[in-house]
Amino acid sequence: MIRVGVNGYGTIGKRVADAVAAQPDMEVVGVTKTSPTYGAETAIRSGYDLYAAIGDRVEEFERAGVGVAGTLPDLLDAVDIVVDCCPSGVGEQNRSIYEAHDTPAVYQGGEDATVADASFNARGSDESVADADSLRVVSCNTTGLSRLLAPLEETYGVEKARVTLVRRGGDPTETGRGPINDIVPDPATVPSHHGPDVNTVLPDIAVDTAALKAPVTAMHTHSVNVTLETAPTATAVRELLEGEGRLFLIPERAGLDGAGALKDYAADVGRPRGDLWENCIWTESISVQGRDLYLFQNIHQEADVVPENVDAIRALSTDLSREESVAKTDEALGIGL
Amino acid sequence: MIRVGVNGYGTIGKRVADAVAAQPDMEVVGVTKTSPTYGAETAIRSGYDLYAAIGDRVEEFERAGVGVAGTLPDLLDAVDIVVDCCPSGVGEQNRSIYEAHDTPAVYQGGEDATVADASFNARGSDESVADADSLRVVSCNTTGLSRLLAPLEETYGVEKARVTLVRRGGDPTETGRGPINDIVPDPATVPSHHGPDVNTVLPDIAVDTAALKAPVTAMHTHSVNVTLETAPTATAVRELLEGEGRLFLIPERAGLDGAGALKDYAADVGRPRGDLWENCIWTESISVQGRDLYLFQNIHQEADVVPENVDAIRALSTDLSREESVAKTDEALGIGL
Amino acid sequence: MIRVGVNGYGTIGKRVADAVAAQPDMEVVGVTKTSPTYGAETAIRSGYDLYAAIGDRVEEFERAGVGVAGTLPDLLDAVDIVVDCCPSGVGEQNRSIYEAHDTPAVYQGGEDATVADASFNARGSDESVADADSLRVVSCNTTGLSRLLAPLEETYGVEKARVTLVRRGGDPTETGRGPINDIVPDPATVPSHHGPDVNTVLPDIAVDTAALKAPVTAMHTHSVNVTLETAPTATAVRELLEGEGRLFLIPERAGLDGAGALKDYAADVGRPRGDLWENCIWTESISVQGRDLYLFQNIHQEADVVPENVDAIRALSTDLSREESVAKTDEALGIGL
Amino acid sequence: MIRVGVNGYGTIGKRVADAVAAQPDMEVVGVTKTSPTYGAETAIRSGYDLYAAIGDRVEEFERAGVGVAGTLPDLLDAVDIVVDCCPSGVGEQNRSIYEAHDTPAVYQGGEDATVADASFNARGSDESVADADSLRVVSCNTTGLSRLLAPLEETYGVEKARVTLVRRGGDPTETGRGPINDIVPDPATVPSHHGPDVNTVLPDIAVDTAALKAPVTAMHTHSVNVTLETAPTATAVRELLEGEGRLFLIPERAGLDGAGALKDYAADVGRPRGDLWENCIWTESISVQGRDLYLFQNIHQEADVVPENVDAIRALSTDLSREESVAKTDEALGIGL
Ligand SMILES: NC(=O)c1ccc[n+]([C@@H]2O[C@H](COP(=O)([O-])OP(=O)(O)OC[C@H]3O[C@@H](n4cnc5c(N)ncnc54)[C@H](O)[C@@H]3O)[C@@H](O)[C@H]2O)c1
Ligand SMILES: NC(=O)c1ccc[n+]([C@@H]2O[C@H](COP(=O)([O-])OP(=O)(O)OC[C@H]3O[C@@H](n4cnc5c(N)ncnc54)[C@H](O)[C@@H]3O)[C@@H](O)[C@H]2O)c1
Ligand SMILES: NC(=O)c1ccc[n+]([C@@H]2O[C@H](COP(=O)([O-])OP(=O)(O)OC[C@H]3O[C@@H](n4cnc5c(N)ncnc54)[C@H](O)[C@@H]3O)[C@@H](O)[C@H]2O)c1
Ligand SMILES: NC(=O)c1ccc[n+]([C@@H]2O[C@H](COP(=O)([O-])OP(=O)(O)OC[C@H]3O[C@@H](n4cnc5c(N)ncnc54)[C@H](O)[C@@H]3O)[C@@H](O)[C@H]2O)c1
Repeated sequence: MIRVGVNGYGTIGKRVADAVAAQPDMEVVGVTKTSPTYGAETAIRSGYDLYAAIGDRVEEFERAGVGVAGTLPDLLDAVDIVVDCCPSGVGEQNRSIYEAHDTPAVYQGGEDATVADASFNARGSDESVADADSLRVVSCNTTGLSRLLAPLEETYGVEKARVTLVRRGGDPTETGRGPINDIVPDPATVPSHHGPDVNTVLPDIAVDTAALKAPVTAMHTHSVNVTLETAPTATAVRELLEGEGRLFLIPERAGLDGAGALKDYAADVGRPRGDLWENCIWTESISVQGRDLYLFQNIHQEADVVPENVDAIRALSTDLSREESVAKTDEALGIGL
Repeated sequence: MIRVGVNGYGTIGKRVADAVAAQPDMEVVGVTKTSPTYGAETAIRSGYDLYAAIGDRVEEFERAGVGVAGTLPDLLDAVDIVVDCCPSGVGEQNRSIYEAHDTPAVYQGGEDATVADASFNARGSDESVADADSLRVVSCNTTGLSRLLAPLEETYGVEKARVTLVRRGGDPTETGRGPINDIVPDPATVPSHHGPDVNTVLPDIAVDTAALKAPVTAMHTHSVNVTLETAPTATAVRELLEGEGRLFLIPERAGLDGAGALKDYAADVGRPRGDLWENCIWTESISVQGRDLYLFQNIHQEADVVPENVDAIRALSTDLSREESVAKTDEALGIGL
Repeated sequence: MIRVGVNGYGTIGKRVADAVAAQPDMEVVGVTKTSPTYGAETAIRSGYDLYAAIGDRVEEFERAGVGVAGTLPDLLDAVDIVVDCCPSGVGEQNRSIYEAHDTPAVYQGGEDATVADASFNARGSDESVADADSLRVVSCNTTGLSRLLAPLEETYGVEKARVTLVRRGGDPTETGRGPINDIVPDPATVPSHHGPDVNTVLPDIAVDTAALKAPVTAMHTHSVNVTLETAPTATAVRELLEGEGRLFLIPERAGLDGAGALKDYAADVGRPRGDLWENCIWTESISVQGRDLYLFQNIHQEADVVPENVDAIRALSTDLSREESVAKTDEALGIGL
Repeated sequence: MIRVGVNGYGTIGKRVADAVAAQPDMEVVGVTKTSPTYGAETAIRSGYDLYAAIGDRVEEFERAGVGVAGTLPDLLDAVDIVVDCCPSGVGEQNRSIYEAHDTPAVYQGGEDATVADASFNARGSDESVADADSLRVVSCNTTGLSRLLAPLEETYGVEKARVTLVRRGGDPTETGRGPINDIVPDPATVPSHHGPDVNTVLPDIAVDTAALKAPVTAMHTHSVNVTLETAPTATAVRELLEGEGRLFLIPERAGLDGAGALKDYAADVGRPRGDLWENCIWTESISVQGRDLYLFQNIHQEADVVPENVDAIRALSTDLSREESVAKTDEALGIGL
């Protein structure tokens, strides 16, 4: 059993913990929190030992009636690997602590690529990442793009991808984030940093991205154009994408018209938190004009990186091949809609 | 076993079906749909027999590859009771069909009170509803108000309740509904019809309501004032409300600041669809000024009526007392946070 | 003086009336309304004679204390030209009435292209439109695209344009329109009809569009890619676009980060209704990668077609050249920021 | 002529400057800005001399090609009075500077009441404020409540007012503010600080307020209950309120259903920036049940305090009576719809 610690039990951390707990070859040794908010209760309800992320906060937990098993160093001593799910930039600060404890680490996409030996996406990364002692799972948007572009590149060749990312302004719990009634170019410069980030896992794909921020909380929406090197039919592309385990082709005429319906569907079929681990691609939108492929996809920002974290753990801890790991992860979680 | 049919498998219908299926004394014989959208797939995944709500649509289901077990009349013949979860006003149209089949029926709050022999709320209605052959579960807002006002009336006496209902503009799946960037008085006249609707279950309580429609999808928010007949302390009120099974007092300092966090918490603790069957009352907001009690409560419009439907089924089909039914329902669903 | 009538005094109609009234060579003979809502008051305050759009509604106006000068046929008899600003599809129904009165007509973009002899955009259309007896001013989105693509085509040649349109869900007054918390592919198929609509004025430009609907009310946002036939510098493109009268290049570092700030700025400089008649292009976003030009532009859906209507009136009624008309219009309105 | 300086040319400051400039007995000597964003351009277009709010930023303005007439101390030397329109809390920091220059000051409602000798509302404050050397114009919400409660108190007596404030999350330009899809109790405790703030101008009125924050940008909405000491008819209340110059009774059946339509109407009738200086009260909502008065009012947060600032200037600088000042202000601005 791979003994895993999760440092930072927030939106991503709690999902990673649950996904790890669902794996046959892994166990959650513990998770950390900085303060005894509702996540502390739900961690305990989920059966995870709770550690104080910050040493001198132990008392604050105790005052709130929440028992902690120790602090971050205690957790690091007890695990084979740590998954850092702290806010952007905090992972970088934590790196020296992990290194001091000789604990291999998986970081999230909010960190700069330099935080880890390599950036990771289970579909896009090549096998060289197996040599790394630390990995950075790329961001939700980059994960979504990598999963889509990798098979297109392999099958048809990608001459150039151009993607408009209409990003959610904040997660459902982030009441302090806007905009309320605006679409904000963010960054206002084009191309955005998302394209180069794709190149940390797929270095050879030409991709330009333009990013907007919109007043929605549930999912990102990508408007994708890919000029391919050959000119397949839309049907062929559809079939190619249907063959990818972490791409969900939204059935036509099913009434799934947006993020609200997608999450409702996910909840209906029993997904925890209504999570959509897969890219959600509107089948009707897949179209080929000459060598120009178009499609819309939605990305559940809170969920798509979760199986990738599980695979990153295996990449650092086992000799399993990528395919074996992905198959194990998907089986354990029930990926595939 | 009470054999239950659900006519109208939408937002409310699918939740009622799942809640019925979870009861030890009930089974779901089947559910109806008007067309083979994603709900049809999820009904089948949930193990419910699917019936065509409209006779001549059977072929449409078949073309979509969705097998149906029959049509509405077939379902009515096979059940002891039907729960009508059709859009507002359709229940009224269905009434003669149910009567022709001699099938007792539970209706939803979108119907006029005259659709059924009595209006129903498990906490607020008196025992006379046991004589009815049909019941209308009052709307989500009225359910939320009845649960709150009943114990206040019993314990302190209610001189007058004044409530501003800030209603969600549409459910998460209803992309066609607005407003986008406006708060709309709806109705523009005050008091709104919600107060009189409370009186269909609690006839003696003086309650004036004012209703707004806001650009949110997750929950309704009620700003409640109740002038009591006596002047309890806020602590006493808090304790009274904590004793009510279907009221959830949101813990202070837990970071639960709005509907997004509440639904996140519900999902974290494993609630199907992140459903909040309970009124969610901000503990910090409970305050008494003289005889004026104030508080904020949030109502999950898709969920709070669900346990009430289960109890309405038992009120029509069994001799169980209200308390016995509520206890059974709450136990089966895991109500109480 | 060209005597102009405006049939349909709503969002577009009232702006067209004011723009016509501001021209030295035109006068507003009257405007129509279907019912005495607030627009009736503001029409009268603006000094426009009010006509009942629907014959048998005269009494309704009178009961509301709003005097009308007659009905639509009376208005048509008194004008040289009518601008139809009725809701989509109603223009088509009105066509036979205008023809029966031998009144040349300008229609809006909500109508099918077949409603008029030609589709019109002052920058994009060629001079052949001068022969038409009726014109359709293309929609707000198509107007915005035509103004941008015409100079790019002329100067660099357009190999292919690919545009994602993030459309506002509804105008600020349209409280019934959504979505509230969703980005909806609309239409879900790609390419959308907007590209072909551009071709009604610029028949030779290859343009694929993909359209989304977002929960904002103030403006549309276009994420534009144009593969050019040559590879200019970004600076050259900037200068080209700065030379176009109806393109506003948003200054960098001015704090104009979205539609809210743009409309605030427009109001600050005294624009009636904070109207932005120009395409608003983020200067920082203009970028050239190889032959791929990228930029973001915002389109004020309520306003950009307004000067085009004025020019369409002149195209049907005078022998002025396009440049002369545009110069006259822009001077009268104060276009150019 | 009263020579006025405006320190802080933002949302409130620019409106105050324009309102001052419109008065026959006042002139705008200059306005300050902290950096050369678009407001700097519009200040100059409006004919106001621009001063650097922060001494060492003069160069930054010059680099941006914006000439400044001096810095804050220069402005203070040249004026009779300064209106501080800086962000909350900055006014308090500026106080000693104003005092050092012996410049009487008007502050805004974002400051604590202690910033000035007295808090001010033209309708609510008593004449004792005339003795003050500095005044704080109360916040937009408090202004709206004071204007409404003062005549009710005078005419019927107010036993108790209970108001739910559904506040806009941010102004239209504030893209960084949320919530996006949530209604947030803010503060979560009831009563909120708004009631006590009303008491800074109307010390004897019993008023409890409960405040929410909603995902809208255009206006605040108040759901008002006032238990009166006598029981007037709704018609009598309507007539009373119609007699108040800064209350606009929204006509029934005019299609003015929310903030979007209200602002559209204001723009239609030529209001600069579509500003609504008046409380906007839905006539249909005015209702009396026993001694309980109910109504909805909307408050344009950016605008309602503007005429109050003008009157505060006169209260500090002249011997005019309140009625004379209000009449002059309203005449100059065109208040009254
Ligand atoms: N939310 C998303 O959409 C999303 C998607 C993909 C990747 N990410 C990335 O995942 C990472 C985590 O993001 P998130 O959305 O889960 O954030 P979050 O704020 O929801 O969770 C972060 C958690 O870390 C805790 N924390 C803060 N400082 C800490 C410290 N010093 N030590 C330990 N814990 C600490 C916080 O209390 C919180 O519980 C970021 O790098 C982010 O960029 C987020
Ligand atoms: N959604 C809420 O917030 C909410 C809350 C409380 C009560 N209600 C009430 O519950 C009822 C159902 O509302 P909902 O939100 O579930 O609506 P919904 O639209 O989500 O679901 C209604 C379902 O009924 C189906 N249907 C339509 N016509 C039908 C017919 N003739 N026969 C059978 N099925 C038919 C629809 O296809 C749909 O699946 C209404 O009375 C509503 O007022 C809704
Ligand atoms: N609003 C936009 O964003 C926008 C932008 C560009 C083009 N357009 C197009 O302009 C046209 C008008 O749109 P709008 O947004 O101004 O609509 P609107 O609803 O604001 O105004 C339409 C007006 O026409 C009136 N009307 C309805 N039926 C009528 C009839 N039979 N005769 C006369 N008047 C009638 C309505 O009362 C209303 O005042 C449509 O074709 C639309 O597609 C709209
Ligand atoms: N916006 C509203 O809804 C509203 C309504 C009523 C009252 N108020 C109050 O009015 C005041 C101003 O609010 P606002 O909304 O106009 O804010 P704002 O941010 O729009 O404008 C404040 C301006 O002050 C400038 N500024 C910042 N620091 C400064 C300094 N040290 N010296 C001079 N200028 C400085 C900023 O650059 C900005 O231009 C606050 O007290 C606020 O609470 C605001």
